[in-house]
Amino acid sequence: MVGASKAEKGGGPIRLGMVGGGQGAFIGAVHRIAARLDNEFVLVAGALSSDPARAKASAVELGLDPERSYGSFAEMAKAEAKRPDGIEAVAIVTPNNVHFPAAKAFLEAGIHVICDKPVTSTLADAKKLAALVEKTGKVFVLTHNYTGYPMIRQAREMVAKGQLGDVRVVQAEYPQDWLTEALETTGQKQASWRVDPKQSGAGGALGDIGTHAYNLARFVSGLELDSVSADIDAFVPGRLLDDNANVLLRFKAKGKARAAKGMLWASQVAPGNENGLKLRVYGTKGGLEWTQADPNYLWYTPFGQPKQLLTRAGAGATAIAGRVTRVPSGHPEGYLEGFANIYQEAARAIRAARRKGGKPDRDMVFPTVQDGVEGVAFVEACVKSAKKNGAWTKL
Amino acid sequence: MVGASKAEKGGGPIRLGMVGGGQGAFIGAVHRIAARLDNEFVLVAGALSSDPARAKASAVELGLDPERSYGSFAEMAKAEAKRPDGIEAVAIVTPNNVHFPAAKAFLEAGIHVICDKPVTSTLADAKKLAALVEKTGKVFVLTHNYTGYPMIRQAREMVAKGQLGDVRVVQAEYPQDWLTEALETTGQKQASWRVDPKQSGAGGALGDIGTHAYNLARFVSGLELDSVSADIDAFVPGRLLDDNANVLLRFKAKGKARAAKGMLWASQVAPGNENGLKLRVYGTKGGLEWTQADPNYLWYTPFGQPKQLLTRAGAGATAIAGRVTRVPSGHPEGYLEGFANIYQEAARAIRAARRKGGKPDRDMVFPTVQDGVEGVAFVEACVKSAKKNGAWTKL
Amino acid sequence: MVGASKAEKGGGPIRLGMVGGGQGAFIGAVHRIAARLDNEFVLVAGALSSDPARAKASAVELGLDPERSYGSFAEMAKAEAKRPDGIEAVAIVTPNNVHFPAAKAFLEAGIHVICDKPVTSTLADAKKLAALVEKTGKVFVLTHNYTGYPMIRQAREMVAKGQLGDVRVVQAEYPQDWLTEALETTGQKQASWRVDPKQSGAGGALGDIGTHAYNLARFVSGLELDSVSADIDAFVPGRLLDDNANVLLRFKAKGKARAAKGMLWASQVAPGNENGLKLRVYGTKGGLEWTQADPNYLWYTPFGQPKQLLTRAGAGATAIAGRVTRVPSGHPEGYLEGFANIYQEAARAIRAARRKGGKPDRDMVFPTVQDGVEGVAFVEACVKSAKKNGAWTKL
Amino acid sequence: MVGASKAEKGGGPIRLGMVGGGQGAFIGAVHRIAARLDNEFVLVAGALSSDPARAKASAVELGLDPERSYGSFAEMAKAEAKRPDGIEAVAIVTPNNVHFPAAKAFLEAGIHVICDKPVTSTLADAKKLAALVEKTGKVFVLTHNYTGYPMIRQAREMVAKGQLGDVRVVQAEYPQDWLTEALETTGQKQASWRVDPKQSGAGGALGDIGTHAYNLARFVSGLELDSVSADIDAFVPGRLLDDNANVLLRFKAKGKARAAKGMLWASQVAPGNENGLKLRVYGTKGGLEWTQADPNYLWYTPFGQPKQLLTRAGAGATAIAGRVTRVPSGHPEGYLEGFANIYQEAARAIRAARRKGGKPDRDMVFPTVQDGVEGVAFVEACVKSAKKNGAWTKL
Repeated sequence: MVGASKAEKGGGPIRLGMVGGGQGAFIGAVHRIAARLDNEFVLVAGALSSDPARAKASAVELGLDPERSYGSFAEMAKAEAKRPDGIEAVAIVTPNNVHFPAAKAFLEAGIHVICDKPVTSTLADAKKLAALVEKTGKVFVLTHNYTGYPMIRQAREMVAKGQLGDVRVVQAEYPQDWLTEALETTGQKQASWRVDPKQSGAGGALGDIGTHAYNLARFVSGLELDSVSADIDAFVPGRLLDDNANVLLRFKAKGKARAAKGMLWASQVAPGNENGLKLRVYGTKGGLEWTQADPNYLWYTPFGQPKQLLTRAGAGATAIAGRVTRVPSGHPEGYLEGFANIYQEAARAIRAARRKGGKPDRDMVFPTVQDGVEGVAFVEACVKSAKKNGAWTKL
Repeated sequence: MVGASKAEKGGGPIRLGMVGGGQGAFIGAVHRIAARLDNEFVLVAGALSSDPARAKASAVELGLDPERSYGSFAEMAKAEAKRPDGIEAVAIVTPNNVHFPAAKAFLEAGIHVICDKPVTSTLADAKKLAALVEKTGKVFVLTHNYTGYPMIRQAREMVAKGQLGDVRVVQAEYPQDWLTEALETTGQKQASWRVDPKQSGAGGALGDIGTHAYNLARFVSGLELDSVSADIDAFVPGRLLDDNANVLLRFKAKGKARAAKGMLWASQVAPGNENGLKLRVYGTKGGLEWTQADPNYLWYTPFGQPKQLLTRAGAGATAIAGRVTRVPSGHPEGYLEGFANIYQEAARAIRAARRKGGKPDRDMVFPTVQDGVEGVAFVEACVKSAKKNGAWTKL
Repeated sequence: MVGASKAEKGGGPIRLGMVGGGQGAFIGAVHRIAARLDNEFVLVAGALSSDPARAKASAVELGLDPERSYGSFAEMAKAEAKRPDGIEAVAIVTPNNVHFPAAKAFLEAGIHVICDKPVTSTLADAKKLAALVEKTGKVFVLTHNYTGYPMIRQAREMVAKGQLGDVRVVQAEYPQDWLTEALETTGQKQASWRVDPKQSGAGGALGDIGTHAYNLARFVSGLELDSVSADIDAFVPGRLLDDNANVLLRFKAKGKARAAKGMLWASQVAPGNENGLKLRVYGTKGGLEWTQADPNYLWYTPFGQPKQLLTRAGAGATAIAGRVTRVPSGHPEGYLEGFANIYQEAARAIRAARRKGGKPDRDMVFPTVQDGVEGVAFVEACVKSAKKNGAWTKL
Repeated sequence: MVGASKAEKGGGPIRLGMVGGGQGAFIGAVHRIAARLDNEFVLVAGALSSDPARAKASAVELGLDPERSYGSFAEMAKAEAKRPDGIEAVAIVTPNNVHFPAAKAFLEAGIHVICDKPVTSTLADAKKLAALVEKTGKVFVLTHNYTGYPMIRQAREMVAKGQLGDVRVVQAEYPQDWLTEALETTGQKQASWRVDPKQSGAGGALGDIGTHAYNLARFVSGLELDSVSADIDAFVPGRLLDDNANVLLRFKAKGKARAAKGMLWASQVAPGNENGLKLRVYGTKGGLEWTQADPNYLWYTPFGQPKQLLTRAGAGATAIAGRVTRVPSGHPEGYLEGFANIYQEAARAIRAARRKGGKPDRDMVFPTVQDGVEGVAFVEACVKSAKKNGAWTKL
């Protein structure tokens, strides 16, 4: 039962700006807590809303210096780049279609970017963005937050070390129920932009949560996806984007082993599921199961032996899980802590970039722009496959 | 906390014979316990093995009259049909390929049939059998035993009554792990015939357990399947039949509602899964979830309300569940009781047939030869789809 | 996934009679199913009710020979003892106060006894009965049925083998909710006799379910109880016997280890608990947890290692569990199978007694009249302690 | 699925100091994260260790102004009280025996106190402290952090509103396993002071975790404890304080209802339990069950209806739970968020005190010095009872 204050640093926190996340938004507040939790970041500037009044009111509520509350991300990138105390990194927490232009503006202004997923609303933009990250050399962190959960880190390590043998089957699912009815017609802000192709891109449930499930499957299995066969539906009358997606997965073969197969289900119309993200990975030597709603547990079965319940910071936890753990086993950590772990990794990367010749932390692990490209490619391949009546489609 | 001895009858038990189920078999013993549990059947004859020595030894062990231990099902059908005290029904518990000829022999001899699943090893045989059942007017019960679980009965009733609204999504899965390695090469009898196309038919995991998952999905949802897109693998080197099947499902539309979609996963190579049969059904008004390993529970979520844990014989249990329940809530019933419920329904049907002009019980519910046809059609459609690289294939 | 027909015998079944268990009773039907499940017993005689009309109707329903449906247990004991085909054993399933006179009558008539718990309604009677069993040499099986669950057998073995080290703490509980309101005033038969001191004895919840929890704690831990401190209540106005009992336990020391301690909670007024029997045992080297509602699982934690989920017939199951198991892992067994295991052990004992010089099965394990004495002693000690404001009271 | 940034304020954060919590400590880091999570506090001063070198090093690590890193709490209280920018509140996170003198020093210096539990190491000190809080009028918050969990708040509200009817039975337990062996002899700091009567007071497991369980039982049930009967042990050889406590509880009657009863188990030697705090409350109309390891769930059974699984921010969550919730349902919150909720309530109280004539928030709910007195009284009553062989002892 060792405690840990590992993330607390004597050095000054990183100056952070935010695009989006004003009043009425959900994910902005999550980013702010995640940034603050380990004392690694301090929020000093924002372009918090495309609506000027809301932007201003939000800035006041957050205690920002009024001078540093901007009317647009473009203005903010420009102004902050000039200040000696300007932001070192920006968090982009807008609807998907704004990710690309905003990220572009900050990268070109020499500012690191922490960006919500999916990385962009089109694959073409995602690729352009990846090229820009490469060119500028800036840190780019994509908040596929579920990869921040300690037991997910451990699961990834177990697979990488061969504890499951050759992976054969990967089952990923992310069911929700909040869009079972036409919530978007009630003016609910979260629902409205998510079902609008202009703001979300080609995928509905696929883009919003399918990308999380897919990212997690890749992150833990260490496999690359070859192709998909998808059957997608918009069950709620009048909805333009999918609210349920059933997808078959074929991974690329690794070594001599037969290529792994899988299924992915993303749904926003499955009553009784709040955020039912679940991942199961099975190999020749064992199996793993993990559920987001109960993230401190990882079920592990070495084939032919009893099932083990590994717990965060518990008897079977490894160093890699411990590195992103704050409290002893049996004291649950949750969504915010997992999210904060992504911010913590971002901080490490940004601090490494601060130092001349600073070597990046060997254990530093966070979703990158390349993961973002993969995610958007996944969405577009699914949509393409679905239009071709489920034809197998390469990513 | 009232108990129930509802199945105990003053009338004499039904005389039963058995084909297969000799020493070393698994499912034969299950059928015998199921037949005996409610005192509805008495086992009086058998052709317990194709190996004469094993047949004889098995009959002795079971206390059968040596005269009524036969060397073949053909001989048994003939001899028993002639006896005034001959069997009224036969249980067929052999490998799949024997189902058809054996069932044919008994139906033609005027004997009711209780048959293990899948009903036959080819669709052509299944259809012939269905015609024969029709022609002879005999009772034919297919032991899709999972439909016997009380909470599954209740789930079916809830869907039928509209408590879920229009069904949109059906997720069915049946993972196991016992064939993760090449158990069939060790002489293990259960494994050997299941991976042999000559004895099993076109499906491996698909036929053995996929048919169960599919049958349950149909039984509960009340939907008919339109077509499938399947990706199947034999992961264990040298295995000829699938040990993992990932299948997309399209159901037929019902009324004006958009057609329901689903996925079905059957696997025998998923370490950590013993008999992980699970069914989830989601509609416009609510969702249901049920797991075979914990069959006394049924999760029900009316959309927008808290999740409810319905329990067998508990506060939320309905009459339809109570009808196939023996002990009070909180005292778990299991696999054998569920199996016995199929035998109990069979007994009702056979007793009704005994009576002149006897009306069949309105509530009588058991899987029929037609369900068997559907099951084999499902397997063959999946195999066909898989051979065409997942092309959508009608049943 | 090996099957098992281990309990099926070529030899003829044991002839069984029953006292109590007529229409409206609960536990009688359970005993009959348990006796029948493995084909070890055949019910041939009964004194099924103290109400002659009900006794007769019940006998007809069960298909008993009318000659062998008796008006009283005394008559039955006498008549059956004289018949060449008379019963070899009797199941006594009446309210508690009838256990003693009925058991006495049959033992003295040379008939083995299978008796429901608590063994008698007073400690004095229990001791007399124990002496009589000793004197007659007959088999006496007390149906503390929960000791029949396979994982409970395994738990007991694990403790005996030292896998938990020295036992320090034992926590047993058996909460129910069915007597939360005054059900006994509605004419419900099960409730009525249980709350009546004349029929039940000194304990209400204590006698009905507390004895089960206590018996299980002893059975698994292998410890003997030294003394109790109890606080008991009848929460429902007008009720004469306890419906909630909170008890502290002190076990006798074993070897040099400090004596183990524990708590026991029995309640019939705890809404949300159907049959919440639960046992937890903790020692210097590990811990075990088991819950009756999910009996196929046994949680085992070797200290300092991850928690393991042992499953009936699964990877970590031992031979001792396998011996009382009928179906493969992942196919749940329940209450009736556990109950049948007691009958199976009884059959082994009775068959051994049949044989001249027959050696009893070394592994034969069932609750005896001595366990019954312990149970009634526990109830009386608790009631005595409660009357003395919780003074520690020896058994 | 709306998000919430409810705790973020435009006003400046509260200036906080800390006593204890230097390197090697566990709970100090937890307090710092909890204070920071909602941006309500800023840590500006500390007396972080009684070891000067460790105090200095810890202050550097936390980025404190060296001038405000003090060698003792006395010095700190004096110095900070004089500064115009001095701390407004102090968090005391030392071993128990330091709580009283430190709290006294700060209260007398006019500084609000946030103090870990148990409030003091003796009941006499606790009473003195309560008087001092009364006299000074300062805010005093005791971090019984489990009362901060949203579903615990909801449980309390449900009981208060009568949804359970009259409470009859309260079962509280807090098992752990980390002291199963003599960890204190290895130099482990957390273990060492907890088993030392000079630093901990009269209770071992009782004081460390039993007080939490007791506090939670009172908080949710709304009942006051009348007396206890305790049986306590130090199972690990050489240990001076209890590592296992079995306690019977008698609550004071409320209105005409029969007084409620309960049991409390606190253990640090129960292998397989990490932080198994669990509370169950049963009344005439329903029951509630909650487990700390899975804090986002609250089981609720209205008597005679199906069990409901209430979830934080889910369909059945009430406003009172929503008030201390940050993320949507299905995204788990954990220990740190619950702890932060106590800090959030403290902030509200301190801000109210800032304002002239400021009315305290009606919904403001946090454990007070009076709860602390109750907790120490509970520990001392248990120890007293145990010494008198379990005699019922008034608090």
